[in-house]
Order: sequence, then structure tokens, then C-alpha cells
Amino acid sequence: MSKPSSASPKSDGGKQRFLDVFPRIQGELLHALDQAGMPKDARDWFQQSLEYNAPGGKLNRGLSVVHTVEIIRGKPLDDTEYYKAAVLGWGVELLQAFFLVADDMMDQSITRRGQPCWFRHPNVNNIAINDSFMLEASIYHLLKLHFRGDPCYVHLLELFLETTFQTEIGQLLDLITAPEDVVDLSKFSLERHRLIVIYKTAYYSFYLPVALGMRMCHITDESHYERAKSILIPLGEYFQVQDDYLDGFAPPELLGKIGTDIIDNKCSWNINVALGLANAEQRKVLDEHYGRKSAESEAKVKQVFKEVDIPARYAEYEQGAYERLCALIDAIPEPAPGTEGLRREVFKSFLEKIYKRTK
Amino acid sequence: MSKPSSASPKSDGGKQRFLDVFPRIQGELLHALDQAGMPKDARDWFQQSLEYNAPGGKLNRGLSVVHTVEIIRGKPLDDTEYYKAAVLGWGVELLQAFFLVADDMMDQSITRRGQPCWFRHPNVNNIAINDSFMLEASIYHLLKLHFRGDPCYVHLLELFLETTFQTEIGQLLDLITAPEDVVDLSKFSLERHRLIVIYKTAYYSFYLPVALGMRMCHITDESHYERAKSILIPLGEYFQVQDDYLDGFAPPELLGKIGTDIIDNKCSWNINVALGLANAEQRKVLDEHYGRKSAESEAKVKQVFKEVDIPARYAEYEQGAYERLCALIDAIPEPAPGTEGLRREVFKSFLEKIYKRTK
Repeated sequence: MSKPSSASPKSDGGKQRFLDVFPRIQGELLHALDQAGMPKDARDWFQQSLEYNAPGGKLNRGLSVVHTVEIIRGKPLDDTEYYKAAVLGWGVELLQAFFLVADDMMDQSITRRGQPCWFRHPNVNNIAINDSFMLEASIYHLLKLHFRGDPCYVHLLELFLETTFQTEIGQLLDLITAPEDVVDLSKFSLERHRLIVIYKTAYYSFYLPVALGMRMCHITDESHYERAKSILIPLGEYFQVQDDYLDGFAPPELLGKIGTDIIDNKCSWNINVALGLANAEQRKVLDEHYGRKSAESEAKVKQVFKEVDIPARYAEYEQGAYERLCALIDAIPEPAPGTEGLRREVFKSFLEKIYKRTK
Repeated sequence: MSKPSSASPKSDGGKQRFLDVFPRIQGELLHALDQAGMPKDARDWFQQSLEYNAPGGKLNRGLSVVHTVEIIRGKPLDDTEYYKAAVLGWGVELLQAFFLVADDMMDQSITRRGQPCWFRHPNVNNIAINDSFMLEASIYHLLKLHFRGDPCYVHLLELFLETTFQTEIGQLLDLITAPEDVVDLSKFSLERHRLIVIYKTAYYSFYLPVALGMRMCHITDESHYERAKSILIPLGEYFQVQDDYLDGFAPPELLGKIGTDIIDNKCSWNINVALGLANAEQRKVLDEHYGRKSAESEAKVKQVFKEVDIPARYAEYEQGAYERLCALIDAIPEPAPGTEGLRREVFKSFLEKIYKRTK
């Protein structure tokens, strides 16, 4: 029997406890290769790919699953429950790792999380494609190990599988809308930006972790999932708009990185709002200088962004988004104290982490 | 109500009927993008990727699902049953397409099925990585559409998911054992070849189609799956050994292609057998000339293959494999005539298609 362990220190939001279970997760995955009789070099390779690509990020998505379960249960999780929630959380982190390893290859990126992209290692190279596949497959191996026989199993499978498809559809739309080497701003629009953001980011980063936590707690009423989605998708949209805005306007020393969306021809919120406000002369500057690989071009685009006052537009957007989200959250019927259920706190904790963030 | 349609003409092994349902399969997948509100350019892209990559092969794996269901049922399938079996068959073909699009990128191949590899199209390029993901995700979208609520649904999901992981493990082992640019024959062995073949090919090409057919027919006795696996994995191994042999020794005009395994540094059955038989002098030739990009080197390796008499070794292997497989098949208890069940015919039809094939 496992006993409740001490609650994770609030200071790190539970990050250390979550990281502490990773070796066990990894061991379970490597055991699959041992059982298959795979030689040491294959096992070592997979181990390195897991270690390099799965942890190392902020882990917000994975932690959200654990927090959701904690809030619904309304009490600290014992070690058994914690590990099951963490398996789902690491599943989301593995899904993200799968996407990021592949995205970096498609974008020909140089670094990720402050270290070289996985595929940039000379002995890895294109094998990273298969490594990304194995990160994805790891999710389902873990689900089978820990949830087979649980009535929520098929729902967990479907959640991961559907969210994967949604994210890939969003990635496709992003890739064909804003290829790094062919600039065509006539393809951009706020509507397209919205679709990209919802499909490429919001489903897997916001809806998936909460829905997994709800399924683990055996919430079966479909209307609760619809309600969660109706809040978490706009929340994810707000998060990404904010991310786009910060890329262009946050001081790099505060943001922790230098924004490259203009140079990279990204279909960002800033450019789409600017396109809607620009006069003919400003539009010409945007067409000629957006997505070009030069600091001069970037400065000219930034100048137009200032002329049309993107910061003021953003401040309006953020206020409106925050108020709409608060209203949606406040409309949730709160379960009686001491009972299990979908509490406002699940969504509020998300919103408060995001609202007016500067990095 | 649907009525039984005329049996597929024996002449093409049912290939035309199988191909005829592809537009409906494709329509169901494109509908997912329509429902997501995706614009026409994204839909068109996905349509082209599906059309280019899913059909166009021999379709043996997909047809095997349909044949398995037909044999177990012991009667022709009506249109409804046929379509469900074909959904699973196209699922296997989509899985194969997912692997092939990615493999071609990892191998930097030029052509596939007589046309340029998908990623070679100038506007596709690295987007092919995401396209391969979407081919994989398509499987689960189709399963949900047609099998949700069927008691076999979770088993179908698990079969596809586990087989995917197995194939990726095999691909990893192959990639690190035989990278195209670093020749090191000391890494090769028949045992490693066997592991690569079983994991990279046998599970998805032989076990998966039959197990899917069995699940669709609601065979639940796990021992039947163990039995099927104990025959189909060696069968797949035999198939791949034969494939390797034909690459080196079949006349190109009969094979329909020119073998490139020697030049490509493949961990093939031929080289592994030759390594076991070569004397010191022959070993030196193999070390110096295997995997080199020249016709002279290839000819020298082929000379050693002839000296150690690979064709005689292969003839022995084939005879032994055939006899072992026949014995395994004959040991299956045959269900009474007119009843449903796992019949020897499921395996015999496979074996007879493969035995002594020349292309």
C-alpha cells in the first residue's frame, strides 16, 4: 500500500515531484525494448532521445494534468494516484516532445530550450524523424501499462489520438500559410491565425491536460467536456496571441529570448492586426520587408507595428479576453464543498498564470 | 440495407474492389478537415498527400485483412461488412504510407513505387514529416468513425498502436546498425538481422492484417492470437529473407527493379550469411567493398557472395522455412465446415503466395 506523501512545495508548483517520477516513466519505456530483446545500442539510443527531448521544458502542460486531478479530487493525491496522473502528464509532455523534435526539423531550427535541436546532433540527423515517432508511441505504451482495464482507458486513447490529429492539422495550415522562404502576406488573415492557433496549440496545450484529468477522475457527463472546451480553447487562443505579442514587444532580457517572428515570416497576431490597420504606404513596407532575413527589414516592420499602435490594440484585446474568460468561468455551477467535481479553480488557476504575464 | 455484391474477380485477388472504396475512405478523412473549418488549400494539400501516398502499392497488406475476414466468415461479405474490413485494410495501407514517406526521407531515397518520393516534390520538402503524421492519424479517425461502440474497438486501437511501436523499434535498430554512410560490418549479425526483420516488417505486414481481421470477427480467445503470431512472424521473416535474396540474385527484368542493398550498406540476409562463411581474404573484400557507392565494389562483393554460394544457402533456407511453416499450419485444429473460426486457409493463402516467388 502506498501512503500519501507530503504535498509538493508550493514554491515550484509541484515541478520537482513531477520530475522525480520521470526516471520511473523512462524505465517502463526502456523495459519495452528489453522485452523485445533489443541490443544495448538501441536501448541506449532511445534512452538518450527520451532524456534529451521529454523533460527540459517548463512542463506546464504535464503539470496541468496533475493539478486538474488534485483540484477535482479536492485533496492531496497519494503516491499511486499521483503516479497515474503523472503518467498522463508525461504523456502530454511526450506528445509535445514528438511535435517539437519534428517541428524543429521542418523549421530547420538551431536551438530548442537552450540546447541544440535533437536532429542537429551529427550522429542523429534524419534518424530524429523515427525518434519523434517513438516519443509518440511511448504515450500509448504507458497508457496500456497503467490504464488498461480502467473504464476511462478508451477515452484517454481517443483524447490523445484526436488531439494529435488536431495539432497536425494546425501545423499543416501553419506550414502552408507561412513557409519560411516564400513571403505572401495576402495569405494571412486573423481568421486563419485563429484556426492555426486553436488547432496547433490550444487543443493539446489547454484542453487535453484538463480533459485527461477529468477522464482519470471518471467524469463521464459529456456536457462537462463541452464546457471545459468552451473555456480552454479561447484561453489557449488568448495565450498564443499573448505569446505572439511578447515575441514582438517584450524586452528580450525579460522574455529570456530574442523574438524572431518577423524575420521567420510567422503568421503572428501582430502582423495580422497590422495588415488590417495599415494604409497603402504601410502595407507596401510590410509586403517588402516582412519575413526578410535582415535587421533593417525587421526594424522597418517594427516601425509600422508602432505606427498602427499594436501595443494599444493588444491591451484592448487582453482586457476583453480576460473579461470574457472570467464570465465563462463564473458561469460554471460550483460543486458543493467537500465533493468531487469540475471546479472553477481548474480554469482560474490557468487564467491567473497567464493574465498579464511578461515572459 | 446493403446486399451482397458480386464476388471480386479472382483474376486481381480483389484489388479492384478494394481500390474502389478508397474514394469513400478519402472523403471521410477530408470531411474531418471540413468540419474543422479548414480552408481549401489545407484540404487540397491533405487530399493530394492521401492520393499520392496511400494507394499505388501492391496493397497486399490491406487485402490480407479483407481475405482474412472472408475466410473466417466462410462466405462472401456484403457491402457493409466489406467496407468495415476495407477500412481496417486501408488502415494498414495508411500505416505503411506513414512509414514509407518517413523512411524515404531518412534514407534520402529518390523514387518510390516508380514515382518521385513525396518529399522530393519541391513545394513539399520537409512538410512531408507532418504529412506522414497525418497519414498515421487518419487510421484512428477511420477507426472511430466505423468501430466506436463495437466491442473490438479497443483491441483494434491497441493492435495498430502496438504494431506502430514495434515497427519503429525495428526501424531504429536498422538505422543504427546500417547507416548509409558509415560501413561497419562488425555490427552485423544474423541475430540482429532477425530482430530488424521481425520488428520492422513482420509485425505490421503479416501479424497485423490477420489479427485485425480476427478482431473484426470478434475472435476473443487470446490463444488464437498467440497461435497466429507464432506462424505469421516466422512467415514474415521468411518473406523478408526472400526479399533480401531476390535483391541480390533475381534477374532485374523479372524483379522489376535493380537491387541496391550492397551499395546502400543494407543489413541484408545475404551479407550476414556471407560474413559467417567468408575466409579471411573474402572478409577483407567484404569490409573494403560493402556499402561503397561504386559498381566495381558491388561486383567484388557479388563475387564473394557467389564464392560462398549464397544461392545454395538460400535454397536450403527456403526449403526448411517452408516445411516448418507447413507443419505449424497443419497443427491448427480446423473448425467444422460451415462454422466460423480461424482456418488453416488464412495462413496457407499467405504461404502459397510467397513460396518460390521470383519478384
